[in-house]
Amino acid sequence: MDKKEQALRQHYEWAGKIEVVSRAKIENSEQLSIAYTPGVAEPCLAIRDDYEKSFELTRRWNMVAVITDGSAILGLGDIGPEAGMPVMEGKCCLFKEFAGVDAFPLCIRTQDVDELVRTIYLISGSFGGINLEDIAAPRCFEVERKLKEICDIPVFHDDQHGTAIVVAAAVLNALKVVKKDIDKISVVINGAGSAGCAIANHLLALGVRNLTLVDRFGIICEGMEGLNPAHEEMSKKTNPEHRTGTLADAMKGADVFIGVSAPGVVSQDMIRSMADRPVVFPMANPVPEISRDEALAAGAAVVGTGRSDYPNQINNVLAFPGIFRGALDVRAKDINDAMKMAASYAIAGLVSDEELSAEYIMPKAFDPRVGKAVAEAVAKAARESGSARK
Amino acid sequence: MDKKEQALRQHYEWAGKIEVVSRAKIENSEQLSIAYTPGVAEPCLAIRDDYEKSFELTRRWNMVAVITDGSAILGLGDIGPEAGMPVMEGKCCLFKEFAGVDAFPLCIRTQDVDELVRTIYLISGSFGGINLEDIAAPRCFEVERKLKEICDIPVFHDDQHGTAIVVAAAVLNALKVVKKDIDKISVVINGAGSAGCAIANHLLALGVRNLTLVDRFGIICEGMEGLNPAHEEMSKKTNPEHRTGTLADAMKGADVFIGVSAPGVVSQDMIRSMADRPVVFPMANPVPEISRDEALAAGAAVVGTGRSDYPNQINNVLAFPGIFRGALDVRAKDINDAMKMAASYAIAGLVSDEELSAEYIMPKAFDPRVGKAVAEAVAKAARESGSARK
Repeated sequence: MDKKEQALRQHYEWAGKIEVVSRAKIENSEQLSIAYTPGVAEPCLAIRDDYEKSFELTRRWNMVAVITDGSAILGLGDIGPEAGMPVMEGKCCLFKEFAGVDAFPLCIRTQDVDELVRTIYLISGSFGGINLEDIAAPRCFEVERKLKEICDIPVFHDDQHGTAIVVAAAVLNALKVVKKDIDKISVVINGAGSAGCAIANHLLALGVRNLTLVDRFGIICEGMEGLNPAHEEMSKKTNPEHRTGTLADAMKGADVFIGVSAPGVVSQDMIRSMADRPVVFPMANPVPEISRDEALAAGAAVVGTGRSDYPNQINNVLAFPGIFRGALDVRAKDINDAMKMAASYAIAGLVSDEELSAEYIMPKAFDPRVGKAVAEAVAKAARESGSARK
Repeated sequence: MDKKEQALRQHYEWAGKIEVVSRAKIENSEQLSIAYTPGVAEPCLAIRDDYEKSFELTRRWNMVAVITDGSAILGLGDIGPEAGMPVMEGKCCLFKEFAGVDAFPLCIRTQDVDELVRTIYLISGSFGGINLEDIAAPRCFEVERKLKEICDIPVFHDDQHGTAIVVAAAVLNALKVVKKDIDKISVVINGAGSAGCAIANHLLALGVRNLTLVDRFGIICEGMEGLNPAHEEMSKKTNPEHRTGTLADAMKGADVFIGVSAPGVVSQDMIRSMADRPVVFPMANPVPEISRDEALAAGAAVVGTGRSDYPNQINNVLAFPGIFRGALDVRAKDINDAMKMAASYAIAGLVSDEELSAEYIMPKAFDPRVGKAVAEAVAKAARESGSARK
């Protein structure tokens, strides 16, 4: 039986990867009268009188909605809201298994920005956080921005920020291996979708000064045809000089290459054109922009990919469970830049100087220390940045 | 410690009465690659190619949304969406404990009919059924009607239909005790809100011919001031003769009184004015329209209330878990009249002729046979009426 068939069969067997269980024992009238009428009136009245009590008297304090519109499911594209649900359920399992967060999957049957925003806002009183998932760019940027403006709980598009946080952690540790400073390197990101733009912003926040964002049509440059508003904004930040050119042009002399694009678009010659001891993260999954072996043969000093069967896997699961754990623990209003930066440093910090090598820049996905370390760092940053409500 | 304080403390201790758990074990990369990427692509593609597979490859087949707008929570009124959540969570516990149904609580931050309908529709692809809860009349009628028109899964407002189903079961068995036929009795219902209107409709469907619906301002009669569209419709069905009068007027000569109104509004004289061997269900909770003892002393032959500390408790929990169990089991498109009637007969049928007495017309809430019997009857009716999809 091949892997695909095995996965399908296992999903039929599971018949759903999540389940809702009762924490209240209701086996007799006495118990019923406490968990339900008439006793349940008391917590209701307590919340009516103090909205914040909704984070104590219901599961809200620990509950995250994992929401998609089905428009960019994995690499499969726009396959529809219901078809995205196996991914959402899987994400919910990871939230619970890696950080004890209750997460519930929801798909929404619209791709209209305002309708998505309004729908999610209207149900947000049921949750302590919103994890947006697999929503196509550039819609995802607007949906997230508008939601952050109106919601009093964290809103986090994992495809953007989860990816940016783990990539940045990998960059931080790779720079230690190649002995370069973050404010002196030049970085090329190929793929200006949700992940690419977020990685760019996060690296800029962490101190990168020279960053080139490239998409199918070349280096992102103000005034180019086919740019969306997110691209326009990024071009102003990263390309005030109005550089133009191909990916190959951009990579000449670069210290770090980050690929969130398509299989096989990077050649060995491009790697050879980079600066001394280049860092190469071809993260297209399952087939990367250039294979690890080819990149190493062409002179890459450190290579990281999205794959679990190679060293240096750069995997979102290192970030999102602990980030929400930390945010929920202090009842954060949002997940701000300080919290995201703290998460990157926490992940990078789990590899000690003694362990650190070109083959080992990232903690393993199943390292039990990760969720806790990220949660603590994020909670601390939330308190220091004024996001925490307790 | 009094009961109220005990209930509040217990809710703090629970910190939420429900929890989402993972059914998939994810302890190593191999398991991760099946439950999440890349394996999860297979069930996604299977659903993209066949929408109905969303009822097999995700938890949807067993998942009900329990949804409120917070406008009519218990007897507490409009206390806001978040404050209604302890009731929604409690309901979810009952769904799981009584019928193995996964249920998830959601509150919606609007009381606009069209916005409620649109929001619920947009998330309905995540569920196998929708249980509306504690939404104020007359808005609840319109919300339910519009949702039923556009959703391909059952939509059920429990305050209406759950109540109607258990009341009808109680009426069926009470009539056996007093030896009267359903098509020859006259019924008075006091309270023309969501429950009262639904009870009226359901009893008419079960064969009652003479039914009077009364509200604060007297017998519901076409053209009266202050009637909402639901009242207008009910008045056409139940009062073509344009009778007018008070509750006391209506109760003269009636065989059955059903109260879903307010404490103490029925006097012993009103009971005395009813027909021979009257059936009296004063269900205002926790303080009924007339106490059981007073009703019996005034000549009531059978008395049923909403309270668990008296005989003949008329409790929704006898109905909704089994109804959704049955509907989900056959992937019903809706919960139609045939299914509701089958549920009433199934509940009534659990009291054998030998057991049946004025003190025992209803099975107990914790009778383990109830959920299964209701589910089987509802599934059968769904198949026979064309609602079942499998």
